[in-house]
Formats: sequence, C-alpha cells, structure tokens
Amino acid sequence: MRLVTSNPSIIKNAIEAAGELITEGSFVLEKDAIRFRAMDPAGVSMVVLTIFNSVFDVYEVNGENLTLNLEDLIKVLRRAKATDKMELTMEENRLKLTFKGNAIRSFSLPLIEPLGESQKVPELEFKCKVELDVEVLRDAIKDASMVSDAVTLELSGNTFLIKASGDSQEFSMELNKDTPGLISMEGEGKAKYSLDYLGKMMKASSLADSLTLRFSTDYPLQLEYKALDKIDLVFILAPRIESE
Amino acid sequence: MRLVTSNPSIIKNAIEAAGELITEGSFVLEKDAIRFRAMDPAGVSMVVLTIFNSVFDVYEVNGENLTLNLEDLIKVLRRAKATDKMELTMEENRLKLTFKGNAIRSFSLPLIEPLGESQKVPELEFKCKVELDVEVLRDAIKDASMVSDAVTLELSGNTFLIKASGDSQEFSMELNKDTPGLISMEGEGKAKYSLDYLGKMMKASSLADSLTLRFSTDYPLQLEYKALDKIDLVFILAPRIESE
Amino acid sequence: MRLVTSNPSIIKNAIEAAGELITEGSFVLEKDAIRFRAMDPAGVSMVVLTIFNSVFDVYEVNGENLTLNLEDLIKVLRRAKATDKMELTMEENRLKLTFKGNAIRSFSLPLIEPLGESQKVPELEFKCKVELDVEVLRDAIKDASMVSDAVTLELSGNTFLIKASGDSQEFSMELNKDTPGLISMEGEGKAKYSLDYLGKMMKASSLADSLTLRFSTDYPLQLEYKALDKIDLVFILAPRIESE
Repeated sequence: MRLVTSNPSIIKNAIEAAGELITEGSFVLEKDAIRFRAMDPAGVSMVVLTIFNSVFDVYEVNGENLTLNLEDLIKVLRRAKATDKMELTMEENRLKLTFKGNAIRSFSLPLIEPLGESQKVPELEFKCKVELDVEVLRDAIKDASMVSDAVTLELSGNTFLIKASGDSQEFSMELNKDTPGLISMEGEGKAKYSLDYLGKMMKASSLADSLTLRFSTDYPLQLEYKALDKIDLVFILAPRIESE
Repeated sequence: MRLVTSNPSIIKNAIEAAGELITEGSFVLEKDAIRFRAMDPAGVSMVVLTIFNSVFDVYEVNGENLTLNLEDLIKVLRRAKATDKMELTMEENRLKLTFKGNAIRSFSLPLIEPLGESQKVPELEFKCKVELDVEVLRDAIKDASMVSDAVTLELSGNTFLIKASGDSQEFSMELNKDTPGLISMEGEGKAKYSLDYLGKMMKASSLADSLTLRFSTDYPLQLEYKALDKIDLVFILAPRIESE
Repeated sequence: MRLVTSNPSIIKNAIEAAGELITEGSFVLEKDAIRFRAMDPAGVSMVVLTIFNSVFDVYEVNGENLTLNLEDLIKVLRRAKATDKMELTMEENRLKLTFKGNAIRSFSLPLIEPLGESQKVPELEFKCKVELDVEVLRDAIKDASMVSDAVTLELSGNTFLIKASGDSQEFSMELNKDTPGLISMEGEGKAKYSLDYLGKMMKASSLADSLTLRFSTDYPLQLEYKALDKIDLVFILAPRIESE
C-alpha cells in the first residue's frame, strides 16, 4: 500500500472525532475508500467512518486491514503541519507515516491484534430526519449540558424540540422551518439520548457546516457529517429508555 | 414581571462579578432598578449591585423579590450570545430566561428560600477618595499578590501609595496627580485589605474604565464601578487590623 | 550598582529559560556583562548565561555577586510591561527592581546565601557542530517526545539524523544541506539525550531565530542561543549512555 495526501488535517479531524469514543479499531483499505467501524467500549455508541480515495493524491491499496491504537495514531497525526504532504506506507508490519515539509519526518506505529470480529453496522430504519447547521446543534447540546446529562429530541408537525430537565433547572429550544440554521425536517418521534456521548460527537464539527440527525421514538439516533466527497462520518447512539 | 434586554452581556458581567464573592442572594425588582445586596459567607465583604431599568427595552416589574443561586444563574447567562435578546419572566415560581437569536432557547431556574433577612448596607463615612483607571488598580493588585496576601493603601498629601510586604519580598507603587490613570484623590488615611478579596472584585473590570475607592484609616474599603446609567456595582471590604 | 534597561523582556526571556532547569544561582556583575552559571539540582545539565552590558542604557557595576531565587525573580520580571523602563539597584542587601511606565512600581527581593562554590564550566571539545533554525529543532523535539523520553542525534557525511524509539512507536527526521532551516553542519558522531531536558531548553526559543548544537559520540551536548550582542545562553547536557 502507498497513500499520499496533501490534506492530512481532514484525516486528523475525522479520526480525532472517532477517537473521542473509540480507543482502537480496524481500518479496511478498500478500492473506493478507507472504512473504519467500531463500537465504544461501553457498547452504547458506534462510529462508522469512510475516508474516500479522493482525499489522496496517490491511493494504492490492496484490501489491507490495519488495526491501530487510535490515541497513538492521533498523537502522530497532530504533528503534521498544514503544508505537509503525508505519505502512509507499511514497513515490517508497522504503519509508517511520513510528513514532507521543509524536513522529512517519519513516525511508525505498530499494528495491533484486532480484539474480535469486525463490527457489523446495524440495519436501522428511522421515522425522523432533521438536517441542520452544526453550530445550532452544538449550541443546543452545550445549553442542555448546563442543566442535565440527557436530552430529549422531539419532532412533531413543524416543530423540532430539544429539551433537558435537571434536578432543578430546565432547558428547551424550539426550531421550526423559519429558524435560520434548520435546513429540513420530516417525521414524528421522541427519544432521549446521553449528552456526554452527544458532546463527544460534536467534536467532529470542523468536518462540515451541516449534519443530519435520524431517529425514531425510543430508538437509536444516527448523526451524520458529510464532508463533500471526502469524508463521511456517522455516529449511532442507543437511546435512553426510562420507565415512567 | 417581564423584562427584555438587548444587552444580556452587561448583566452577565455584573452578576459574574458578584458571584465571585456571593453564592446566593435576592434580587428586588423596584420601579427604577433591580437591586441586589448580599454579604459573602465569611462576613468580610458585601456586594451592592444596582441594574437600572435603562438596561431593559421592556421593564414591567411589581416589587418582586427573587432569591436565586448565583452559580446556576451565571451558567445560564453565559449561554447568551452577543446578538441575543434576553427575556426574563416568571413561570410557576421559576425564573424563565429566554434567549431569542436565530433560535429561541429557554432556561428555567427554581427560586430558592432566602437564607434570612435582607442585608442592610452599613452607613459608612470615608475620609479618603481615589478615582483611577481600572487597569492601574488591577495591575497593582496583581503586582502585590506576587509578594503577599494583603495590601496597604495609604493616601497622604499628594501621594497615593499601594504597598505589600511578604515573608521576603516587597512591592510598592506610588501614584501622584501627574500619574496617567489617576483621575483624582483627596483625604488622608492608611489601611490594609485582603488581596484575595480585592482580586475577586477586579473581575468586574469589564464593566467600566474607571472606579472609585473610598476608605479611612483602619476602616472598611468601598470600591465602586459605575457603568454610565446602566449598572452601579459597589463592593465593601472589612480592613485587616493588626496589633503591632 | 545601578542598571537601567528599556528592554526588560529580553532579560525576562533569558532568565525564564534558565529557570526551567535551575532554582537559584549567582549573578556576577562584571564590566562587560552579567554572568550566571549553575548546575541543575540533578547534576545532569548546566546553564551558562551572559547578559551583555549593551542591553542596558545605564550599566554601573562593581563586580557584585548576587545570589537569587530564580522563581521569585521571574515572577517579578513577568510584571514588567513591554513599554516599562526597568531599573535595578541594591537597597539594604536586597535587589530592588523598579518599573517606570505610567506609574512607578517597585519590587524588592532578598539576596540569599549561595549554596556553595561557583560552578566551573567544564572544558569540552566537540566533534560535531550543527547550526539550524530554532523552529526546526523545536518541532523535532516535540515529535520525538510523542514516542520516547530520549532522542538520538547522529551526524555523518551530509546527513543529520534525529531519532527516537519508544516501546512501540518510532520517530526519525533527516536533515541534509538542502533542508530549509539547516544552516550548516560538520563532523561525525552519535549520542543520546533526555527529551525532558531538551524540551525545557527549547523554552528559550524566543531569544533567537537559530541555535548551534555541538556534541560528540557519547559525550555532552552544548546548545547555544545567541541574541546578537545582547544575550548568550548556553545549555550543557550530559549524554545518556546505554550498555547494549
């Protein structure tokens, strides 16, 4: 394999976001894209990351499957400069990352044994779909985190409601079709999700200006960032279901 | 009651400054202004805050007395954006704060039981008065904090002296009528005050460019910020009196 | 003695860098320069700092020897503003630092008893010499710190190699005469040094744009910053020698 990109930072941003939830996982180098999917250690959320071959100037792959510690990988990716070219190759069962700028700097990381079978992405069908500016959702999640550790998403008619109730404080935000930043919405449903996980998923916000939420009543949430034809980053999060 | 302001940040700044010393207290909504006064838990300092009705576009009050946890209130006020309108209303014995920007976001906070009688502001007469740029005093207090935990203010003739002595280090700063940043001074006196408290009082420095100090020998200090006709924030601080 | 400078920040930067390794030491005020040399408490590194009299507008000295706690001195130097004039005088066996800007602010620090004899600078002869941009070395040291706690410098022929190996990760950087940022190199040799110490030595990087490394195989390293005719800051660092 040999991969060369002039845009190491978009790859760093995507893997940093995955690294908020996942500690290690396998990258599969397929013909059209590098694919990564993994479940977080608690089994509550899943990351499905696709880095399309258009990110690379040179993309020579052969179906390799590279299992890496994400924390180590991210530390190295952070050392790339904005103007560096990054080359990825294999050397004696290690991943070699070479940054070519003023000087040539190389890092190598060991491949690790995969923990188990590759994770399957569950087949999900959603009744609700909301597309909105990343900034709007990020603010709402910070707001809600002031008062509670979980947030309720409720879509009905022409209103998308984001609500949180804590021991003593409450928060609510209402979006309708006239709200700047709300791009589209359709469906009806209501479910509750962990703000801790959602906050980590918002760390990917530099990847795209808008994102798409999909959910149904008391059902998983899917949160998707699309960076044009370069990166597709999907998070799936189990709902919190409370007996009432 | 119903209050609407286009300037939530000036209110946030004033209450943040009070919150450095005070954990909870009562806001009384009088005809001309919202008044807040409270003593810090140690009984060493007092905050007297007046937010005039000119800060508000809509100011409908009826003498309400709202006791709130300042820390919770400040967390919510920090979520306002610079361009948001903020509306304050009551809803089922809770204070509702609504931020209207691109989206409409609402928080509600419970009223709490007041701890005791409303604090009376002591009647004080001061022999010394110094008006100076906020920045000059803030620097002097940081300087003095390098060497000690208390500072001596000494006004005599045409010199205002700020001094501190630590175990091994010493600091002094001398201001006279030619010092840029010193606006006016009159009186004679000398007293010592806690730098920890003074440092917290300087957190309000974004409210105004200048402030007024009033004190007398071995007597409380009064530190006053005036933000035009919008905010008046007064701190009162007990002196440190040392047997020599 | 009486010293006056319009450039307190260059002195602050140099002493801050020394303070990363040294907690106290003696400044000797000689005719042409102030000289400071001290060994770090672990005896692994040495700092030799020369502040030439050209830094000062007034330079009246008499061979004084001032032993000071560097941490206290640095705290005070940090309080100088960019536009302040700084005056240094002695007052009753204390060093008095006066900052003259809008106001006149004075600090005084006690002299302390020197711990022992003045440190002699070892006579060293080096086989390798590399002159390079500060930024290039600083990056390499940060890179290497990602993977290990020690770095190997290797100069041979026309290549200067900076390498580090950790438990699982590896880093290497190769510089040759075509690398922008490499100014000159000569000699052959290879030695290993602590990244913790090197990282602290890089804190002086605001003093100069380039620096000179001198070393030999399994021999101390000398790292020198020259700020024109104002400051000369030399660090000496013992090698790590490993039985193989």
